[in-house]
Amino acid sequence: MLYHYYIKKFEETAEIRFDILSKNSETLARRGRLYLPHGAVETPVFMPVGTQGTVKATSQEELAEMGFKIILGNTYHLYLRPGHELVKKAGGLHKFISWNGNILTDSGGFQVFSLEHIRKIGEDGVVFRSYVDGSYHEFTPERVMEIQSALGADIVMAFDECAPYPCEKEYAIKAMQRTHEWAKRSQEAADPNQAFFGIVQGSVYEDLRAQSAEFIASLDTDGIAIGGVSVGEGKELMMKAVEWSMPHLPEDKPKYLMGVGTPEDLIDAVIRGIDMFDCVLPTRLGRNGSLYTTYGRINIKNNKYTDDFSPVDPECECWCCKNYSAAYAPFI
Amino acid sequence: MLYHYYIKKFEETAEIRFDILSKNSETLARRGRLYLPHGAVETPVFMPVGTQGTVKATSQEELAEMGFKIILGNTYHLYLRPGHELVKKAGGLHKFISWNGNILTDSGGFQVFSLEHIRKIGEDGVVFRSYVDGSYHEFTPERVMEIQSALGADIVMAFDECAPYPCEKEYAIKAMQRTHEWAKRSQEAADPNQAFFGIVQGSVYEDLRAQSAEFIASLDTDGIAIGGVSVGEGKELMMKAVEWSMPHLPEDKPKYLMGVGTPEDLIDAVIRGIDMFDCVLPTRLGRNGSLYTTYGRINIKNNKYTDDFSPVDPECECWCCKNYSAAYAPFI
Repeated sequence: MLYHYYIKKFEETAEIRFDILSKNSETLARRGRLYLPHGAVETPVFMPVGTQGTVKATSQEELAEMGFKIILGNTYHLYLRPGHELVKKAGGLHKFISWNGNILTDSGGFQVFSLEHIRKIGEDGVVFRSYVDGSYHEFTPERVMEIQSALGADIVMAFDECAPYPCEKEYAIKAMQRTHEWAKRSQEAADPNQAFFGIVQGSVYEDLRAQSAEFIASLDTDGIAIGGVSVGEGKELMMKAVEWSMPHLPEDKPKYLMGVGTPEDLIDAVIRGIDMFDCVLPTRLGRNGSLYTTYGRINIKNNKYTDDFSPVDPECECWCCKNYSAAYAPFI
Repeated sequence: MLYHYYIKKFEETAEIRFDILSKNSETLARRGRLYLPHGAVETPVFMPVGTQGTVKATSQEELAEMGFKIILGNTYHLYLRPGHELVKKAGGLHKFISWNGNILTDSGGFQVFSLEHIRKIGEDGVVFRSYVDGSYHEFTPERVMEIQSALGADIVMAFDECAPYPCEKEYAIKAMQRTHEWAKRSQEAADPNQAFFGIVQGSVYEDLRAQSAEFIASLDTDGIAIGGVSVGEGKELMMKAVEWSMPHLPEDKPKYLMGVGTPEDLIDAVIRGIDMFDCVLPTRLGRNGSLYTTYGRINIKNNKYTDDFSPVDPECECWCCKNYSAAYAPFI
């Protein structure tokens, strides 16, 4: 079967390690290789988001064929449905979804703080209501690490508080301090077989970003994420959050900018030293007919494509571009 | 590329021919082989329906992998969008949708008569309104054959009047006579490079079905369809329509029961001598979580599959059954 051909291409590695392969002389951009339990990942890397264990509108074999070696799963969604215990019973998320590449699970922090069903935020954790059946649940750092261990991802994230935007400095300090406390507790509770990433917060405040970056760097985690971005602050402040954090982060760790972004954002962040990204944008836009191409974003439903029998993107090697025309694409 | 591997399996044949390979001694069931411009099709055959040039929820390469050698396209839908002239400009329907197996296009008769936007039925044809933009269009036998020629299908169907159910005998006679007149005109207008099938009508009346079968048989078409079934008459009357028609149809032609049906319907019709089928049922049901399996129809969203880590159908060789569990299937 085709799929087995592709999954053979993923080599399993025993050690979690990050190698910097080359550096750009004019910017902070670098090429690296991140060794994970389900094979090596070349960086900079964009990770497609498989919210509930399936990247929308794309099958696992299509992802493998496109060359993806790592995808993302949402802890919050998988915890609520089908449930981490069921996934564990199935043999873990890789087996459940039949994906032998790597998986990164987020901590659920972004979801429980951004969606409007928080019951109570305390020092210990967050009580929230399920969007599935309205039942109450609590996420603590220990609980979130237990869930991510059951899911069996290759990279797990610390439980953090993602402050909204705009955010008063007073609250941003509180959320950051809570994030730091939770990062320590997450790290202590983490499964040693999984790569563990801490998350820098600090909202749009330069001193807080610096302080948070220093603290997270001190934990000596396998990788470091910059969180609390892409929450409405705009591109300029997002890049500032990166610039304010980077000088305080060790060069030798992979850096992950969470929830970003457009192709332009990726380039702007790569030149600022970022190695990893995730975003629902390409799949969400694609489902609505908006496609990223070598020549920019296009809306394939636009009348000008009605009789365009050339590929959507002549430079692209993907299935759609190699087999179908722009005129046919809206019918697929 | 994978797809090119599969399309190579379709061998092109020059001659349109139907061979009966073996006959069942106790029933009218037979195995046959229908040679068409895009390769040979083993019969009995079920043809998946690709209304607008794409079988819903299934890609062309998946269809090829499952072994389908012929799919159906709806003339009515393709005529309205993207338009037969555009498809012709794209190099025909095969090239437009990147499918190198065979294609059968219906005549649009079923749609224009069953959907509620008929303007006027006359001896010459039917005026109807577009569901896309409300504009007026006319289908005549000549026009429908011209459209099917532009689409470039391997099998084209005569333009017929599909009478509704229930239907007074007086009207059933009128519709049948119109169908016969239109069958002759369709045959005269047909492109000789395409296989042409006549359609038997006659509603639920034994004498009309016999009369219609005799007439259509006299046209000596490449194949013969039994139409006007699966319109609400129920299974018993549907099988009667087959039984009343069959004795008047030549054994050596492929027989096609239009718009049928459930797996049980297929078997019941095969033993009555039917060779070809089409139906939206499997894809429509599948999109709603209802799946046909070796052990009957199941609803994959049923709670009992929540922790069922075995395949949806252990006897099935398809992608889903070979790679995913029943528990995961609802997430795909």
